Amino acid sequence: MEHLIGNAAVGQSGGPTAAINASLAGVLRGVRDHAETIPKIYGMKNGIDGLLAGDLTDLTPLSRDGARLSLLETTPASALGSCRTRLPAPDSDDGTLARAVDVFRKYDIRYFFYIGGNDSMDTVAKLSAYTETVGYEMRVFGVPKTIDNDLALTDHTPGYGSAAKYVANTVAELVRDCAVYTVPAVTIVEIMGRDAGWLAASAGIGRYIGSGAPDAVYLPERAFSLDSFDRDLKEAFARHPNVVVAVSEGIRYRDGRYVCEGLFSEQKDRFGHVILTGAAAALKEHVKETFRCKARAVELSTVQRCAAHIASLTDIREASDIAAFAVGRAVCGESGRTAVFRRLSDDPYRVVFGSAPVSEIANKVKHVPDEFITPEGNYVTSAFAAYLLPLIRGETNPVYENGVVKHFIL
Amino acid sequence: MEHLIGNAAVGQSGGPTAAINASLAGVLRGVRDHAETIPKIYGMKNGIDGLLAGDLTDLTPLSRDGARLSLLETTPASALGSCRTRLPAPDSDDGTLARAVDVFRKYDIRYFFYIGGNDSMDTVAKLSAYTETVGYEMRVFGVPKTIDNDLALTDHTPGYGSAAKYVANTVAELVRDCAVYTVPAVTIVEIMGRDAGWLAASAGIGRYIGSGAPDAVYLPERAFSLDSFDRDLKEAFARHPNVVVAVSEGIRYRDGRYVCEGLFSEQKDRFGHVILTGAAAALKEHVKETFRCKARAVELSTVQRCAAHIASLTDIREASDIAAFAVGRAVCGESGRTAVFRRLSDDPYRVVFGSAPVSEIANKVKHVPDEFITPEGNYVTSAFAAYLLPLIRGETNPVYENGVVKHFIL
Repeated sequence: MEHLIGNAAVGQSGGPTAAINASLAGVLRGVRDHAETIPKIYGMKNGIDGLLAGDLTDLTPLSRDGARLSLLETTPASALGSCRTRLPAPDSDDGTLARAVDVFRKYDIRYFFYIGGNDSMDTVAKLSAYTETVGYEMRVFGVPKTIDNDLALTDHTPGYGSAAKYVANTVAELVRDCAVYTVPAVTIVEIMGRDAGWLAASAGIGRYIGSGAPDAVYLPERAFSLDSFDRDLKEAFARHPNVVVAVSEGIRYRDGRYVCEGLFSEQKDRFGHVILTGAAAALKEHVKETFRCKARAVELSTVQRCAAHIASLTDIREASDIAAFAVGRAVCGESGRTAVFRRLSDDPYRVVFGSAPVSEIANKVKHVPDEFITPEGNYVTSAFAAYLLPLIRGETNPVYENGVVKHFIL
Repeated sequence: MEHLIGNAAVGQSGGPTAAINASLAGVLRGVRDHAETIPKIYGMKNGIDGLLAGDLTDLTPLSRDGARLSLLETTPASALGSCRTRLPAPDSDDGTLARAVDVFRKYDIRYFFYIGGNDSMDTVAKLSAYTETVGYEMRVFGVPKTIDNDLALTDHTPGYGSAAKYVANTVAELVRDCAVYTVPAVTIVEIMGRDAGWLAASAGIGRYIGSGAPDAVYLPERAFSLDSFDRDLKEAFARHPNVVVAVSEGIRYRDGRYVCEGLFSEQKDRFGHVILTGAAAALKEHVKETFRCKARAVELSTVQRCAAHIASLTDIREASDIAAFAVGRAVCGESGRTAVFRRLSDDPYRVVFGSAPVSEIANKVKHVPDEFITPEGNYVTSAFAAYLLPLIRGETNPVYENGVVKHFIL
């Protein structure tokens, strides 16, 4: 078999995670190991935006620097920067896709690796279709990442395990924190996940491993009901005065309205802006009114997606390894595909890598399945715990300098 | 010298921290080492409330269990529970103080150790004064803790170093997270500290150690001005599109109004409640209006005070050691005092333990001094960095089980 010889380009796209730089390190390791086929690798600054602007950095020296690659693996967010740009459809190109191919020709780029989630896979699909149409031979490959864990056709996504580990640990600490007083109080923890509840689900893991756990967990996969919520809180108060619940930011009522737009939709600030609030903030007001007790909203915010100091070792290793695997597959001739995980067993945890057509992954959302949610819709099941546990196990032991984790800077 | 022979009681009071259980472990170790003088030690459930209710737990077996003491040291929040109860003044006792002495007599308690901050030291002062007045011989001792670091007469307080380490690391991660996009945006990170800015100040450490740092840091020790704030943001935007600032929750305008009550004071929700918001949320609205750019408020919330998974080893060791030291001082006859740190040098870091009259510590606040704040009032100085660094150095390497830090449960 004859390999397509040429350089590679790699980019990061979409929201930052604790593992997206491990994916980058994996692509670099993969290219280093296929140096006979891929002599050089260029990093695109801010994803496809950098490619179109010709803003490329030669990462070949970095790919051969083991110490710096290790540091890159434990550094959060996107070392190359990110973007949310959407390309035009291949059959109605306004010159954007043609420009991309010009840059490919100029740098003799024959391998394109794009690390991202659902939206970013759209870029991979379009570039793959367009280059084929215009007869520019290249291998276009998606490398999965998203804390949301909602990519189709893969068991899980790099970035999810680390975010879930942060959420599980932080909720366990919050449960301890809330337990110290005897005054009745409700703490509502809001976790990222607009469409799928995978990350919020991880808040419930404590119940299955004997660590601090919330009293209820609500996911967007189930319609949210204030009546059921009140009933859950009453039951929790019967057990202890300090109630903690976890909610996904994307929970909605049966009629489709987001909980976060439920309470303040008619409120405006002094500039006339509608006051936007989170789901937890909205529920806090409801709890104060209904239970006449102390209530607190804790939004884990963007901190949860970049908390590399408590990354999952499994996640970081897999992120790096599946990215290197993607390089190998591209060198073998595959294109227009995304690397995916297929799980063979939970315990012992066994997973194999594969690939799937990027067009079947782009713009799709994988929801938390029924068997991972209790019939009452207010907690996760032991089957979910079995699914999650392997993904959050292991610690990366990052390097601290002066008490602060050392980060890679390009 | 003849020692006062009798049992001990220990309690935790005020807000939870990552180090308050290390202080408890230190008291237990101290008592274990003075077993000839103090045969038994009782834990008060929920601080002074538990003492008054006679809700005491014999912790003597725990004091001799090294493995469990180690686990206790790295467990966040108060293992014994907490309270915010204030005792009556000794000269106008309504029976409460008399009841406390009844319990002391019943259990032959001659040593009283209370772990807490400014308010909790008020309890120590009153019990000390009252027992002296009624002629009940006992040693009453304060053991310092507070993430706020605002106790008078001590160089710093246990709990502060760990919270500061969490803040420094989280802000460094957020700065990386914010840097990935090219669209102008302002992220405002709100950090605990109503009266003193010590914890918010720790957000600025990155500038002095080459790690991710915010563009500005605002403390309650300086009057907050929207004009200066806008000027600072403009200067930051000239450097990069992603601006990050840290604010203390307690920042106020020159006229004394809190920034957090500045914007929505006339707004009510649909139940007629005044909408309370944080300083960061208020400034976010101001930024959107003034700069017409994306703005985000990140509240580190109660997570910052109980993040034991990233505790400072220096903090945890000192918390434990100064508590054991307090026991020794009490055995030697001191009473009505609080254990304090006196710093000899920053680098190498050298600190000695001492004690100070609790009446000079209770209900007082130690502010961040002028030399730790820049003349412009929008950052911390290198002198502050020299002060802070020794307190956040070192990692505790807590024990993980199934990816989640293992916690002590009484």
